[in-house]
Amino acid sequence: MEGMQPTNVQPEGQTQKKDENTIYIGKKGVMSYVLAVVTQFNNGAKEVCVKARGKVISRAVDVAEIVRNRFITDVKPKEIRIGTEEMQSEDGSVSKVSLIEITLARG
Amino acid sequence: MEGMQPTNVQPEGQTQKKDENTIYIGKKGVMSYVLAVVTQFNNGAKEVCVKARGKVISRAVDVAEIVRNRFITDVKPKEIRIGTEEMQSEDGSVSKVSLIEITLARG
Repeated sequence: MEGMQPTNVQPEGQTQKKDENTIYIGKKGVMSYVLAVVTQFNNGAKEVCVKARGKVISRAVDVAEIVRNRFITDVKPKEIRIGTEEMQSEDGSVSKVSLIEITLARG
Repeated sequence: MEGMQPTNVQPEGQTQKKDENTIYIGKKGVMSYVLAVVTQFNNGAKEVCVKARGKVISRAVDVAEIVRNRFITDVKPKEIRIGTEEMQSEDGSVSKVSLIEITLARG
């Protein structure tokens, strides 16, 4: 099984506080994020946004598809956006990374 | 540099003949697929569909973003679809894999 990574918990907690209906995909196992999305819907959210950048973009699609096919079947992808973000590394160089935002909506 | 993989050339050639405006993302370097998409547009295509499944979904997003940002700036993602496909492995077991289809349109 893919385990929880305690080092990820703090920053993710902070971001979710700022933007409650958004789940940021990181390096944890897929089911951690599926559970997070399902919990948001069960707490009454009408829409949940799943965001990812770089290599974990495929995991964001997995999360959306698993939620929809296995857990909450009346959820549909309402909007899917892709884009590019600039990231500054420690040595000051700027690299670009792709991102995806999948907005899942109920009903 | 990420090189061409001659073993991939044949099957991709076959698929593209069947569905001319579709680029299937595989294990080659990102720029191979960027070139393929740009070539389709330069040959007069109004729309090009970039398809990927599994781990290379993030590469499909990279391809779409690089085409749009660096090569043909009037191209936009017209439609983005996600889904799930069943794959049968050699031992007969069925596993599911996520997929993405990004339709890029000019103008």
